Amino acid sequence: MLRGRFITLEGGEGSGKSTQARLLADAIGTRGHEVVLTREPGGTAGAEAIRSLLVSGETDRWTPWSEALLMTAARVDHVARVIRPALERGAMVICDRYVDSTRAYQGAGHGLSDAVLTQLHADAVGLWPDLTLVFQLDEAEGLARAAARGGDARFEAFGREFHARINGFFAELPALDPARCRAIDASGSVADVAARIMAVL
Amino acid sequence: MLRGRFITLEGGEGSGKSTQARLLADAIGTRGHEVVLTREPGGTAGAEAIRSLLVSGETDRWTPWSEALLMTAARVDHVARVIRPALERGAMVICDRYVDSTRAYQGAGHGLSDAVLTQLHADAVGLWPDLTLVFQLDEAEGLARAAARGGDARFEAFGREFHARINGFFAELPALDPARCRAIDASGSVADVAARIMAVL
Repeated sequence: MLRGRFITLEGGEGSGKSTQARLLADAIGTRGHEVVLTREPGGTAGAEAIRSLLVSGETDRWTPWSEALLMTAARVDHVARVIRPALERGAMVICDRYVDSTRAYQGAGHGLSDAVLTQLHADAVGLWPDLTLVFQLDEAEGLARAAARGGDARFEAFGREFHARINGFFAELPALDPARCRAIDASGSVADVAARIMAVL
Repeated sequence: MLRGRFITLEGGEGSGKSTQARLLADAIGTRGHEVVLTREPGGTAGAEAIRSLLVSGETDRWTPWSEALLMTAARVDHVARVIRPALERGAMVICDRYVDSTRAYQGAGHGLSDAVLTQLHADAVGLWPDLTLVFQLDEAEGLARAAARGGDARFEAFGREFHARINGFFAELPALDPARCRAIDASGSVADVAARIMAVL
């Protein structure tokens, strides 16, 4: 039995997810609720070891399917050791990226079938979020923000068309799965975006 | 177009696959045919990096699904960079373990669905061997041989029942897929087993 609630934040590079995930965790924590703030790829020792294989090296280091499978292997570990135990004890889990990032990057970005990736998640992981906040941001603004910040260079080096396909997936996602996903306008100040998230919650 | 032939060797611990794979590669190579001898998990730089995550550490380091996905991620890399290019140029590829090891270890051994693992292979890898030699050996003899040799300690530490399930899978496999798989009696001397393989080829 999962008594807690599982919220994921998704969106393209530089859309401000990580900042908002921290603010959301703080806001919920101050109300006395246990909050687990985590991220993907990573979140456990095993998943971080896989992450280190994924985020370094040349853009063609991994084929799209190897990438999707490594991401999912890390997700299985993360869910088994962190997310599911936290939900079982009633905590709120806030995760910066989850399965929709695999659908966006390896699916829309690299051309793997969304139906196959979704089935793989159902078979291997089997846990869907209660709520997914999908950050919407003009891609030029997102990439400019991401470049200013520095980050996972391998993913940011795939080029403009790749990121346009990813932003296209995130633009469509709330309508594809309206029971789980909500679009969040990620333009404007950090406080503006935080207020929009609180309005959705 | 794949002009070469792809042969895999499968079986439990200590069944003598690796020795026979080398002998088979030598026998074919002396007839003037290009032979690529390789193994799993591993066979490329990326797959070896994944292998190093898999074969060390505690027996509960990875959940069964993480293990299956890491194995498959390594296989995707191995096929894309080594096996498929070799087959395209007409080489004979001999591989020590392949998808049937995932079906045996993570499927029969750890309880994942064989149908789901087989579908995952079809989706992510999409290449089946032309011929699979399935080594059959009494499990006590196999484990004694493996222990004498030393080896991947994590896999050998799962215990007797685990290895019995794996041997059970390999015992059934030739009848499950008779068009691709042939049982090889792996008892007796190295020369005896090599002669049985040559009789099948």
